[in-house]
Amino acid sequence: MPKPVRLAINGATGRMGQALLALVKDDARFILVAAIASPTSSKLGQPIDACAGALTYSHEWPAPGTLDVVVDFSGPAGLAEALTYCESNSVGLVTGTTGLDATFAQRLNASAARIALLRSANFSLGVAVLTRLLRQAAAALPDWDLDIIEAHHNRKEDAPSGTALALGEAAAAARGTSLRESAVYAREGRVGPRELGTIGFAVVRGGDVVGEHEVFLMGQGERIELTHRATDRSIFARGALEAAHWLSGRVAGDYDLDAMLADRAGH
Amino acid sequence: MPKPVRLAINGATGRMGQALLALVKDDARFILVAAIASPTSSKLGQPIDACAGALTYSHEWPAPGTLDVVVDFSGPAGLAEALTYCESNSVGLVTGTTGLDATFAQRLNASAARIALLRSANFSLGVAVLTRLLRQAAAALPDWDLDIIEAHHNRKEDAPSGTALALGEAAAAARGTSLRESAVYAREGRVGPRELGTIGFAVVRGGDVVGEHEVFLMGQGERIELTHRATDRSIFARGALEAAHWLSGRVAGDYDLDAMLADRAGH
Amino acid sequence: MPKPVRLAINGATGRMGQALLALVKDDARFILVAAIASPTSSKLGQPIDACAGALTYSHEWPAPGTLDVVVDFSGPAGLAEALTYCESNSVGLVTGTTGLDATFAQRLNASAARIALLRSANFSLGVAVLTRLLRQAAAALPDWDLDIIEAHHNRKEDAPSGTALALGEAAAAARGTSLRESAVYAREGRVGPRELGTIGFAVVRGGDVVGEHEVFLMGQGERIELTHRATDRSIFARGALEAAHWLSGRVAGDYDLDAMLADRAGH
Amino acid sequence: MPKPVRLAINGATGRMGQALLALVKDDARFILVAAIASPTSSKLGQPIDACAGALTYSHEWPAPGTLDVVVDFSGPAGLAEALTYCESNSVGLVTGTTGLDATFAQRLNASAARIALLRSANFSLGVAVLTRLLRQAAAALPDWDLDIIEAHHNRKEDAPSGTALALGEAAAAARGTSLRESAVYAREGRVGPRELGTIGFAVVRGGDVVGEHEVFLMGQGERIELTHRATDRSIFARGALEAAHWLSGRVAGDYDLDAMLADRAGH
Repeated sequence: MPKPVRLAINGATGRMGQALLALVKDDARFILVAAIASPTSSKLGQPIDACAGALTYSHEWPAPGTLDVVVDFSGPAGLAEALTYCESNSVGLVTGTTGLDATFAQRLNASAARIALLRSANFSLGVAVLTRLLRQAAAALPDWDLDIIEAHHNRKEDAPSGTALALGEAAAAARGTSLRESAVYAREGRVGPRELGTIGFAVVRGGDVVGEHEVFLMGQGERIELTHRATDRSIFARGALEAAHWLSGRVAGDYDLDAMLADRAGH
Repeated sequence: MPKPVRLAINGATGRMGQALLALVKDDARFILVAAIASPTSSKLGQPIDACAGALTYSHEWPAPGTLDVVVDFSGPAGLAEALTYCESNSVGLVTGTTGLDATFAQRLNASAARIALLRSANFSLGVAVLTRLLRQAAAALPDWDLDIIEAHHNRKEDAPSGTALALGEAAAAARGTSLRESAVYAREGRVGPRELGTIGFAVVRGGDVVGEHEVFLMGQGERIELTHRATDRSIFARGALEAAHWLSGRVAGDYDLDAMLADRAGH
Repeated sequence: MPKPVRLAINGATGRMGQALLALVKDDARFILVAAIASPTSSKLGQPIDACAGALTYSHEWPAPGTLDVVVDFSGPAGLAEALTYCESNSVGLVTGTTGLDATFAQRLNASAARIALLRSANFSLGVAVLTRLLRQAAAALPDWDLDIIEAHHNRKEDAPSGTALALGEAAAAARGTSLRESAVYAREGRVGPRELGTIGFAVVRGGDVVGEHEVFLMGQGERIELTHRATDRSIFARGALEAAHWLSGRVAGDYDLDAMLADRAGH
Repeated sequence: MPKPVRLAINGATGRMGQALLALVKDDARFILVAAIASPTSSKLGQPIDACAGALTYSHEWPAPGTLDVVVDFSGPAGLAEALTYCESNSVGLVTGTTGLDATFAQRLNASAARIALLRSANFSLGVAVLTRLLRQAAAALPDWDLDIIEAHHNRKEDAPSGTALALGEAAAAARGTSLRESAVYAREGRVGPRELGTIGFAVVRGGDVVGEHEVFLMGQGERIELTHRATDRSIFARGALEAAHWLSGRVAGDYDLDAMLADRAGH
């Protein structure tokens, strides 16, 4: 059996941090070394429910040589600290922190030359696989009509979902175009026949649906449907742990889930 | 074995008329007595491909006492003639002619007091059953969010489809409201949380999809999906023949497919 | 606003009991009067996490006149006590206890003459509605081929699921037959053409799927799919509470979820 | 505009041959040079309905240099003649003839060193794309449970379908195993928990369903569904024409639809 990956969770008191702690507890592939919280957190010093040991929430980063990967869902300030630590100690970094400005993005690009860095806006493995498949299907069947249907709970305020838009962008890129040029976001009234090469969106809202995305590729006499259904928000924490496990021991580089999947699939 | 129903098809040279002729030929429940075409049709006097016998397209209505039911897909002028004939001869009438004005609608109401009359804008049995089920589900689960998704081929010019709107109207009525008050026809951008009691529509267009309608009823932790898929336009002719068979021998009255289904289901 | 329903939960320490307590806490339609546990429960006397008040798990039944409905998921012994109490005090009873022998079933039949009794083996409202719709569709389209597909998590040990069998039995009954005469439980190898009037089952197992049931009614050129998807086991507790609310104040009788739905739908 | 591909159809009087003739007529990418029928066909010398020109069904192969590709759906004897002709004249060959013995298979392997040869048991482009996607998904998510559901019309006599088995074999191979080791063809009764690494099949039969295949990959909290729906048998002729167009002008080699798709997708 391989040695467990030594892990720190940055942003440990947040929603994703808590989900990660709950999963790591039961996962023999990992040893939790630190649960980093913000310097102002009221939980500092408190024991971590999910852990049997004496580990407490802390703002102290571990000693050099005790860590393989940091998983970060903390926010820009926390991520900046994590980057400094990882670069100094040659530790891998998985981050799902979003809302970074251009300067920060540049810093991440630079960091990727020095450490193994994996970033993603959506850590669902299923969505990553779907995106990968969609790119190929869109390219292999360039003249089939492509529409994206998504369904979410009744409290969601924007439409289409960010994931639906990202899927659409991936499909558009695979066909040598962009969503800006090809998207049809709604169809209502006398819309006329479908224009060739467009990518349509259809939106369902209701109940407590966690998130479903379905891509229709429609030809003459046949069609393909590529569907992802999420039923539990824990999938994002699961995907981040998979990424941490895969990243451990890798050479410096700028990785994403797609790179991990390509590697797994032996490409 | 019961006696076959003696049938005339009015509007026999049209698309629906031709589909009806093709089906009647192989259906032992019926005897085709007349194939009525418009007085200006170039096919008058020509033999009917679908029939072994000597029957030709004609504008002559059959002699009294030779007919049980007329199936009409002819248009307002043809329907007016059919009504006159059916009333004079106590013959049942199934009609799918649409685009009738208010005066004509009144005449039909009056006719229904004298003959067995069955009319519908959509003769798919599946859609009729779906509508029936939807009414009950919408009433039984009044606080579940209800959305309607429809998919059609890429040449369809309007959205949502007429059938989707009719389903929505049926669901709204079952909840004591109307589509005018509750419909949300498109969701794009910052739409905010879903409003309670609304009925949403989502539209897919592509390929040669004949027609699919799906109703989502979404609660907490569970949902129901009611789906109809058409793969062949012959279903409308099939449904009209079912209606003709059911109508034969019935007392005067204003019937629709729902009445037929309720009767079959023993209600 | 109507007066809240005064509720006791029998079997309060079990899985369903706990789910019920969690829901009742946030539901203004109810006041929790008692949480009954077995006389040997280690939780007797302990406070109920879900409740702000001083209520504790107890084996004491409340004083006469303080209760409207008992919801029971306790087991045969607990149910026997609940029946005695409800009959003496004219209190309604909702029970999901299963595995009762014929003698017990007779006692329940007798009780239903004295109190309002609602029993069900599956308290999902969605499944109850689906069953109701299926009965009608199966009767309205008697010559359409009917198959039932179900999917459950990878730990489920039997196939098809009890709910799939119950749906099949309902469809068979609606067509004047039974599953014993019409079921085809698996298709493998040279099975020959589908026999008219049979009801087929198809089973999917995998992941942590909570439970999905899909009925296909397949005609010529069209089909209907009736689908139920459960994503959260709390739906059973939700359905039991709906039943308790509906049962409160009703006259004595033997009720089930279908009676509740028929009443709601105004039939 | 590129020069049209000069085409011969071998087995032109068969079901696939007729479907090919009907499509070629309206497809400006092709010129039909010959419609080859068996030497005993009663149609020899008759004009081809689908074509405006003077072309008749014939058993004569065209003169050297007048043909780019032969599309063959004739049977072993016809295919042997086509091979001889194509090798002598450096013409590409697309064949869907099945039921060949080992000796014949060897001859095809040898031919592929001399001419561009593309063979497939199923010319649906959609199924070819689905197979390609499935291989990758199965490899990228090796620990997700994988089941295959297929639905066909009520006259189909075997189960699961050949296409479902081919999909299963592709998924098994992508996971380093085979269907022989991993298939579970039916689940009925007390089957116990799902065994890791198995591939399950579920079969639906009814109506006139042309053919639907759905692969479920089920993880924790999420799943992927890859679906192909055929609604028209013309898709096989369409796919064969796509293959003929792609094959025209290619160097000698042993090709299949997957190679064509990989080429299109730019890999």
